[in-house]
Formats: sequence, C-alpha cells, structure tokens
Amino acid sequence: MTHTVAILGASGYTGAELVRLIATHPGMRIAALTGHSKAGMAMEEVFPHLRHLHLPMLCSIEEVDFGAMDLVFCALPHATSQSVIKGLPGDMKVVDLSADFRLRDPDAYRKWYGKPHAAPELQQQAVYGLTEFYRDRIRAARLVAGTGCNAATGQYMLRPLIEAGVIDLDDIILDLKVGASGAGRSAKELLLTAEMTENVTAYSVGGKHRHLGEFDQEFSALAGRRVEIQFTPHLVPASRGILATAYVKGDAQAVHDALQNRYASERFLQVLPIGQVPAMKDVRGSNLCHLGVVADRRAGRAIIIAALDNLAKGSSGQAIQNANLMLGLKEEAGLELAPIYP
Amino acid sequence: MTHTVAILGASGYTGAELVRLIATHPGMRIAALTGHSKAGMAMEEVFPHLRHLHLPMLCSIEEVDFGAMDLVFCALPHATSQSVIKGLPGDMKVVDLSADFRLRDPDAYRKWYGKPHAAPELQQQAVYGLTEFYRDRIRAARLVAGTGCNAATGQYMLRPLIEAGVIDLDDIILDLKVGASGAGRSAKELLLTAEMTENVTAYSVGGKHRHLGEFDQEFSALAGRRVEIQFTPHLVPASRGILATAYVKGDAQAVHDALQNRYASERFLQVLPIGQVPAMKDVRGSNLCHLGVVADRRAGRAIIIAALDNLAKGSSGQAIQNANLMLGLKEEAGLELAPIYP
Amino acid sequence: MTHTVAILGASGYTGAELVRLIATHPGMRIAALTGHSKAGMAMEEVFPHLRHLHLPMLCSIEEVDFGAMDLVFCALPHATSQSVIKGLPGDMKVVDLSADFRLRDPDAYRKWYGKPHAAPELQQQAVYGLTEFYRDRIRAARLVAGTGCNAATGQYMLRPLIEAGVIDLDDIILDLKVGASGAGRSAKELLLTAEMTENVTAYSVGGKHRHLGEFDQEFSALAGRRVEIQFTPHLVPASRGILATAYVKGDAQAVHDALQNRYASERFLQVLPIGQVPAMKDVRGSNLCHLGVVADRRAGRAIIIAALDNLAKGSSGQAIQNANLMLGLKEEAGLELAPIYP
Amino acid sequence: MTHTVAILGASGYTGAELVRLIATHPGMRIAALTGHSKAGMAMEEVFPHLRHLHLPMLCSIEEVDFGAMDLVFCALPHATSQSVIKGLPGDMKVVDLSADFRLRDPDAYRKWYGKPHAAPELQQQAVYGLTEFYRDRIRAARLVAGTGCNAATGQYMLRPLIEAGVIDLDDIILDLKVGASGAGRSAKELLLTAEMTENVTAYSVGGKHRHLGEFDQEFSALAGRRVEIQFTPHLVPASRGILATAYVKGDAQAVHDALQNRYASERFLQVLPIGQVPAMKDVRGSNLCHLGVVADRRAGRAIIIAALDNLAKGSSGQAIQNANLMLGLKEEAGLELAPIYP
Repeated sequence: MTHTVAILGASGYTGAELVRLIATHPGMRIAALTGHSKAGMAMEEVFPHLRHLHLPMLCSIEEVDFGAMDLVFCALPHATSQSVIKGLPGDMKVVDLSADFRLRDPDAYRKWYGKPHAAPELQQQAVYGLTEFYRDRIRAARLVAGTGCNAATGQYMLRPLIEAGVIDLDDIILDLKVGASGAGRSAKELLLTAEMTENVTAYSVGGKHRHLGEFDQEFSALAGRRVEIQFTPHLVPASRGILATAYVKGDAQAVHDALQNRYASERFLQVLPIGQVPAMKDVRGSNLCHLGVVADRRAGRAIIIAALDNLAKGSSGQAIQNANLMLGLKEEAGLELAPIYP
Repeated sequence: MTHTVAILGASGYTGAELVRLIATHPGMRIAALTGHSKAGMAMEEVFPHLRHLHLPMLCSIEEVDFGAMDLVFCALPHATSQSVIKGLPGDMKVVDLSADFRLRDPDAYRKWYGKPHAAPELQQQAVYGLTEFYRDRIRAARLVAGTGCNAATGQYMLRPLIEAGVIDLDDIILDLKVGASGAGRSAKELLLTAEMTENVTAYSVGGKHRHLGEFDQEFSALAGRRVEIQFTPHLVPASRGILATAYVKGDAQAVHDALQNRYASERFLQVLPIGQVPAMKDVRGSNLCHLGVVADRRAGRAIIIAALDNLAKGSSGQAIQNANLMLGLKEEAGLELAPIYP
Repeated sequence: MTHTVAILGASGYTGAELVRLIATHPGMRIAALTGHSKAGMAMEEVFPHLRHLHLPMLCSIEEVDFGAMDLVFCALPHATSQSVIKGLPGDMKVVDLSADFRLRDPDAYRKWYGKPHAAPELQQQAVYGLTEFYRDRIRAARLVAGTGCNAATGQYMLRPLIEAGVIDLDDIILDLKVGASGAGRSAKELLLTAEMTENVTAYSVGGKHRHLGEFDQEFSALAGRRVEIQFTPHLVPASRGILATAYVKGDAQAVHDALQNRYASERFLQVLPIGQVPAMKDVRGSNLCHLGVVADRRAGRAIIIAALDNLAKGSSGQAIQNANLMLGLKEEAGLELAPIYP
Repeated sequence: MTHTVAILGASGYTGAELVRLIATHPGMRIAALTGHSKAGMAMEEVFPHLRHLHLPMLCSIEEVDFGAMDLVFCALPHATSQSVIKGLPGDMKVVDLSADFRLRDPDAYRKWYGKPHAAPELQQQAVYGLTEFYRDRIRAARLVAGTGCNAATGQYMLRPLIEAGVIDLDDIILDLKVGASGAGRSAKELLLTAEMTENVTAYSVGGKHRHLGEFDQEFSALAGRRVEIQFTPHLVPASRGILATAYVKGDAQAVHDALQNRYASERFLQVLPIGQVPAMKDVRGSNLCHLGVVADRRAGRAIIIAALDNLAKGSSGQAIQNANLMLGLKEEAGLELAPIYP
C-alpha cells in the first residue's frame, strides 16, 4: 500500500533530499510540494537533478489538500514551521525537520532561539525524533520533531555512554566538522565557494550553538542531573557530511562495549572494531552512522569518532525513518541505499 | 527470481560502484568478489563504506565457482581483462568494464593500446555496450564490452546528430571535464589532492586519448565514412562526474530535434528544453545523462552540453543496465536511484 | 620614491588582491580605502587575512583627499565606476578594474551592458589595459580600463596568431574554465559551496558573455575585419584561476612560433615548449600567464591552452602593472611574486 | 649582500616552497638544488610553476660544491636527512626541515621513529627551530631542526599558557585539521583526490602521531614536569593549511592575556581580540600565525584556535626565518608576503 505525502518547503536541501529518498521508497508517493517564493515553478527549475521524476509543481501551502495526505513532511525554516503546523488539521501526522519542536521546555526554547514559542501546546506533544531512542513513542506520535544534524551525531556517540555510566559527565568535548549544506541553501558570504575552498572555520565557538539546547535537554534527562558538554562545530570545504570527534574520560573498552551493546541490533548504527575510525565520506548519501572508539595513550581517556550525512541520517533520512514508523511501514523502507563512494 | 553474479576486480572504484548499485537491485545477488593483491581481505577493509552489506570475502579468480554464476562483471585493469575472460567457461555471460573489447578491429586495438590483442576471437564476438544503440544485440550477447566513460558521453551527444545528418562531420570538437575517479584508484602524483585542488589540467591533448579509438570506430560506422573528432579531456577537482561541451556546425534547432526525437522514449537520457544546459552534479550517482543544446550567436553553430556520472552511467551503471538485458530482467532494475544533490 | 594610492571599492576580491600585491610593492603606499556599505569598518573586519598590515579604515569616497593621491585604483562594481570616475579631478590618474571603460564604441557598450554609458567622453579617452599590447599608450594615459579576466586570457592566446595571420579567423573556439572569484564576493546561490563542490557548469553559453564585447572589439581591430569567436565559460570548483582551451585552424608550429616570437621579451607571458600545456594552478597568485600549443592529430588544427590567475594577471596584477607604467615605475615592481603551489 | 644557499631535496613540496620564498628574498640566492631520483632534470619539469625563475638544474648531493654555500636547507625525507647532514662539512650552516633533529633525547627518538638515530652527536648540537622561543640559540647555531608543522601550531597556542601557569597541565586537548600537503608529494591512496574530496578523516588517533614527541619534549621542559597532551590530527580536503582547536581548563581572559603579552612584539604571531577566531585560509602562503581565544559557556574553560600554513610558517617559512638569523639578516627578510585570499 502506498501512502500519500506532502513536503512543505521543498525548495531547500532537506526538501530535495526527501524527494530523492522517496523516489525509490516502495510505500510513499509525493502528492504535493510547496515552496514559498517558488510557488508556481516546476521542481526541476529549482532542482534540475530531479527532472526525470515528473513531480507535482511547487504550490503554496494554502493550495495543499491536506485531507488527501497521510503524512506531511515540514521542511520549512525555523520559526515558520511552528505557525504553519499550528494551522494544520489537528490529526494530521507531521514530521517536522526544523528546530521548532526539538526542545520541550518553553524557557529553553526562548533561551536558545531568542523568542517565545508560538505553539507551546504543540511543543509539549511533539516527540523527539532520534529514532533509535524514541522508537515506541514515535510510532504513536502525531508530531515528530526531527533532531539537529549535529545533535543526532553527538547523541549517537554519547547516549550509550551516559546510559551505561562509563564516562565522566563533567568532561565531554565534541569537536565537529560539517559540510556547507548544514547551513542550508540561502546565499551567505561565508558559504561562498571562494571563501570555503582550502579553508576550515570554527563557528558558534564557546557554547553558543543552538544544538547545545538539544544536548543539554537529552543528556541531562538521561543522566538525571545537569550535563553540559563543550561543543565546537567547524565548517569544512564539502557540500555534505559530518565527522565528529569526542574526547571523554572513561575506559575505551568500556566505551566501545557500551556502544556495541546498545547498537547490536540497530541496522543503521554501525560500530567499528575498537581502534578503527570512520571517514566522513563512508556514509555519504545513506542513512548510516559509523562509530569508532580509540583508547588514548593516557589511560582512562577515549576518543570516539562518528560519521553521518547531515542531509540523510541527520535530517531527511531520519525523517523518512520516523515517517515509516508513524505509518506502520517497515522502518528501513526507502533507506537501504548504500553510501556513494568516492 | 534472483540472479547470482560475481565481480572480478572488486577492489577498484568501478567494482565498488557495482556493489553499491547491486545492493538495492531486486534481481541480483553478489556471490563472489575477487581482488588480485587483496584476496583474503574483507571488502570492508578495502571499502569501509560497504561494511553494512555483509559481502563475500575478496578471493582470487581461481577460487570462484563460475558454474554457480549467472553472469560475471569483469572490472579488471585493461589488458588483464582479455586474458582472464579468455579463460572463463565459453558460455559464461560476461560484462567487461575494461577497454579490452571496445574496439572490434585488431589493428585499431594495436594502434590505440600499443600491443596486439591476446584474444582476437573474443574481440570479434563482443558487443559494444552503449545500451541505447546496441540494445538488441546486447540482449543476445555472451560478452558485452562496456564503453569508455568519455566515449559514452560523447556518443550520447553526437550519434543522433550524425544519424540525422544535421551537422558537419569534419568540424566536431569535444571539450570534456572529468573528475579524478575516471583515472581509477591507483596512486599517481597527478591525482593527489595537493595537486588537484584549485586546479584544472588538460591531458592527452591533440588527439591522443584512447577513447578516440571508440569515437572513430562508432562515428565512422554510423556515417559510412571516416569521421575524426577533436577531443580534449580536462581533469577537474572533483571525485566523479563528467561535463562535456561539444561545438558543432549545424542548426541548433535541428540538433535539438535530433536528440529529442532519438531519446523520446529513453528513460535515462534526458534532453533539456532548448537553450538550457545541465550541470555536472545534476546526475551524480545516477544512471542518467542530461543533454542540453544552445544556439551560438553565429548562425549555423550549436553547442551541446552533457552531464554524466563516469562511474555510474559511464561505467558500472551501464554495466548493470546491460546485464539486466542479458539476464532478461527489466532494463532499469536497480538503476532507479535519483541523483544525489548537493 | 613612494607613490600614494587610493583603492575605491576595497571590500571586494579585486580590492583585497590589490592590497596583497601593494603590501610588498617597493614604490606604492595605500593612503585610502573605500567601501560603500562598509565605510567605517577596519579592513581586517572585512578581510581578516590583512590584519597585520595596519591599513587605513574603510571610508566613503567623499572622504578621500584625492589631491593627496598620485593614482587611484577603482575596483567598484560595473556601472558605479563610470559615475564615480566622472566625478574625480580631471587630471587624476585612474586605473579602473570594472567593465565600464573597456569598450570604446558607445553602441557596443549599450549592446553588451544593456544601457547607455554615463560618461561617453571618458569612454573615448580610456586606454585598454592589456599591457603587453597597449604599453606606450598606457604610459601616457590618464585613465586605463582593466580588461576582463577571461578577455585577457583569450587575447594572450589569440592576438599574436591574428597578427601573424596564421589561423582561420572564422573558426576560433574558446572553452574556458574559471574559479568562483571571477564572479566576485556577492552572495549568490550558484556560487555556494554546496552547489559548486564536485560540479562544473557552463554559463552564458552561445555567445552571451560580456567579455565577447572585448574580443570582438580587439580582434576585429587587429584583423581589419569582423572577427567573432565562439566562447563558453565554465565555472569550476576552485576559488581562483583560469584555464582556457582554444581550438584553431592553423599549423601548430606556426601558432607556436607566433606566440614565442611575440612574447620572447615579455617577462610575464611564458610560452612552453611545443607539445606541453600548463595547469591552472601553475600561475596561482602570480602575474604570470603560461601558454602551451599542441598539434591536433588532424593536420592544420592546433590547440592552445593558457593558465592565468583571474584576480592577479587577470585583474589586480594587471592593474598594478599598468599603474607602474603610468607612474614611471619599473613595470614589474611589486609583481615578482612566484606562484604559490600546491 | 647576497648569501648563497643550496636546497637538498628540492623536488618535494617544502623544497618548492623554499624556492618560492627565496624568489623574492633580498638577501639569498639559490646556487644548487638536489633531487635524488630527479637529478638531471630541470626544476620546471618537476614544478612547472617555477619555470620563470631560471633555476639551477637538479643535481645529486655529491655534485654540490658545499664550499661555495653560505647555508644549506635540507628538505630530505626523514631518516635520509641524518646521514646526509652527517656527511656535510663540519662548519656548514644547515637548516633541516625533516624530523631527524627535533628530538634531543635518543630514547625519545627511538620511541617515536622506531630505530636508533644515525647521528646522535649532531642530535645533541641541533637547536630546535621554533624561532620565537629559541631565537638567541638559533642565531648562534650551526644546525637548526625545523619543527613539525602541527608541532609548531600547537606550541604557538600553548607555550605561553604553560609559561604563565594559567592552564591545567593534565587536561589539554588539541584537535587539528590539516591539508594534504602535510603528508608530502608521495603518491598514496589516502591522499588521492577521489578519496579526499567531500571527506574528513582522523589519523594517528589516540596519541600515535610523531609530533607528540615534540610536544612532550617541549612542554615537559617548559613546565618542569611531565606534560602529555591529547592530540588528534584530521585530514581535510585542502592542499595546504592548518586550523587547530585547543580545549584547556583555565580562565579565557588569562589565556588571552598570556598569548597577547608573549606575542606583543612578534610580527608573525597575531593574537586576535578575545572572542574572535581565525580561519585556516587567513594566513595562506604567508609566514603568519593567527591565534584566537574564546571563553566556553562553562566557566574556567577556554578554547584556543590557531591558523597556520603548514608549508610556510609550519615549514619552509620557518626555515627561512631561522636561516635569516643564522646569516645575520633581518629576521623577516623574504617573509613579508601577505596571505593570498581567496
């Protein structure tokens, strides 16, 4: 049986990635695509690589017949998302890819996003979309909030360690490298090719990145106490991909065991043999996350390295995975694509 | 029904690309992988991005049970291929990705490859693997010779124009830009990152590139007279992809019509509206080729631009497409993946 | 003796490149820098790589004391340039890096730039800044119009061949590959890293690029008849650099001789031995242009390949070279930097 | 007065970078270039970007007239260096760019490089080449050992903090990103363009990188106790450049003060205002190192970020700076080039 879906905000990178993944999904069909300033255009004008798919024209949100949809993917900009979702039919299944429903606490939302939330009642209902840790609640959810791509990566690395109690919670450092698509398709000087080739830049240094709101919420809940990690993202000259390096205090073997035990039956989370580390490109275009653990020369310290594609497992792949659960489909439907390499 | 295949020479980029495509192919199963110097290694040691697929170990060619195979993909180096294929069971279906069986004329082979062919009798039997132009013969073939990636691109651009008689056969110029994987995975100084970033280099300038052997053979046969194009490949700082620009003398509308008519029912060959041109990345990872035609300001001259992924439609995708025909499968089986962008 | 200069429009890439080159120039000192929307900012806020130079603050054009300047570099956007230069003191020496004074014919200007020229009288006075071909007139000029970067490259390749009468004037094709900085620092979607990595795109295909105005003007004047070349620029994933490939009908040896004879005493124009071709990166950051000639396999056809840095010899380096002549300095002053490789 | 120098091992990247810098050096002249397997070739065959310089042919070391040299740069591979330098005239001034004389302790050398040192007596004499910290000893030295490029970066970030006693010596983490040229010009699979584009990889994870030998030696000597930092280098898709991020426990203001005080009169070491961080490309091609400090959201923790060009300040620029001191030249001679950006 094929489920009918709409993608709101299809003219950005996460929208295009949803289309790419649904193109070979056995149980989903795209019935509507919206694009604010691009309503009326053919999708192939916005993304020529999709021209062979004969997709619906981009329309405005008002033109979508939500009654005909089984599920809506909302790939709108932050802040826009909350007001749009508020206006959808109350029983509409929604997977939101924005940051709007990731934080449960209205104060935390205000702190990290600088203004009050426009739909606090929905904020309470939303289920956090880190599939492997919220699977049962996602299955029953009406609204699932996709995680930040950096936040997903860091949690895959660290949650099992916090659960297993094998690391010092006061000394967690996450140094992350991400490609340009993490910042979307809007034209900004710092994302220009001339600026980024042969360059690496750190940003939001010192604990200013909004994904820290997610880390704080999730790690503190998990630990039953306040946990605040250090987190520094770096922009690297690539279009997509994340490689994250975490420095923790704990026994490397125990760290590796914790990851391996937790992910033994998880198809998309691949733990490498101890001592091996993944490369960013090893998971490109796929819904996989590769994780490696190495002992430092100093006893009691371990380094964890993870690779994840920010647009796939970090965003649109995760969204499909969650939508599969919400629609009663096989969790991995449409997500079996192997990484593209080189 | 699932067909059992072997990949000889699986430790190179075209081998890895075959594995990637077969991973989601509904009718093929990989039963053996060989790797000369890497026999005994797990495929994930050679290509960590394939670790989730639980593939057979790399073995030597001698260890393969060819009796159990429905078809063999041969992704071995040029020259090695001909002696290996000669030694296979005489009724074994083979798709060869090397250059060894592309040229039908032993003299032409000697001219372009510098030595006599080791299996001239097979050379005669082999069917040239440009699917859309040799489809019926490929269906019946025992041995199909995959085309050069540049040769495929140029032929998709020019064959319909020669067939339709709409261009001057004495003035065809093909200026092509290709990523590094076109040269394989062998470690050469000119392919180093430090050499190639921020760089573009022309190579085999002046009519020295071996793919000219294919162009000469095919275009001359098609035209019924000697046709010799000018061809300059350039290496660009990318891992995969081809963008080719052809300069022809002929009416742009007639050129566009010829392409559109010829490819109207071809799923993988997409002709853009006249005046539009494709970008190299528009077909990345897919079996598609995008083609655009623009009229020059000077009447009677047209520019044709095509985008094709050298490892997919230019090599391993084409190989799967041909194998599908040889095995009686749907031609597009396993090849429906949309391009990955950005 | 040190000459005092101002740079108008110093917040773009050509402005920054002027500063870089003047930093080690023995006879120039920067006394003023202007930046429209960035007036009041320190140059190091706009270009942190210049922080060690202790430059003047960015100011508005109105604040510049032109009486104290020996020469002004005008790196303003096209169209802005003509109105600003019109307002400068009538005897002020000016090197303009915009497109505004490249075309001498008001009709040609209107055709290529879509509107009438605002300072047609200055347009007549301006000397075209292709140093090696306009050296004497530049020495005496008050206003020198820097050439387009593509236009410079193509002219270095083709002028000597037209002068020497060794090629067919009706069949000249120029296929050019250029890095992103050729399009400036303004934030446009097509220049984003996520769009450009692993990508090559053709633009202004079919004779629409404005630098054709320069080619037409210069080549026709040189030949004493109308000459219209075909020209296709391509954007490649690099921040700076041009590699251009020209296809001409003529004897390769005669072509090579023409270049070598013409440039024998030109320090910055390096002709390689016949059969050799340059790489884009071979001239990076320098005022050099490397030129190579190869005979095609088809007799009577030659391929010329040239490498030039669009921001250096194609723009700001050329501007310094011309300013040196105008100020009576050694022509190569400040321009002796070797290319940076890799 | 011009000093005559030889470059041994001129066919690698550090050799080419020495030539580039000496090309505009007012007090040095290259009289000999050696290249093991390339003896007899012109330098422009090995590095075409240097063709305008009319350099001496590459010769073998045996052919060099060391009596005519004022100083020798030794850019040979590790291990080769020590035996070659041992054979030079005993009073020959030598700047070595290899790893051979960085470690003073023979046991440390054996530990990190896996075999005994071939010239332990020279090892004792050699002065460590971190100019700003060994200036007086370098002036008087006969043999100066260039530092590792990563080791230089990390020491510029951390030495003043250790000297000033403002950080916890047991919790120093250095996460570093470096371009491909750091690994030299030898053709290795992991350095191929097809492998590195769109990729980031960590290597020598867990305390295995040889530059840790330098960190241990220098930091422990400085602190008067054993100091062992954690260090993880990452390969990024760039040809040159280092961006390093250090995580320390200490007050950010005190950290910033320590750097600023220590480097107030150092021309090449630029400390940014507190809260600002440099980008890798900000120092490209120059002898500069930019350093920034940011306070973490968690009190008592600071992040230090530094940018340095591995081939310039990290290797050949540093070598020139040290040679200047040894020859009694101005320390900054030949090193005033501004960074090239973009």
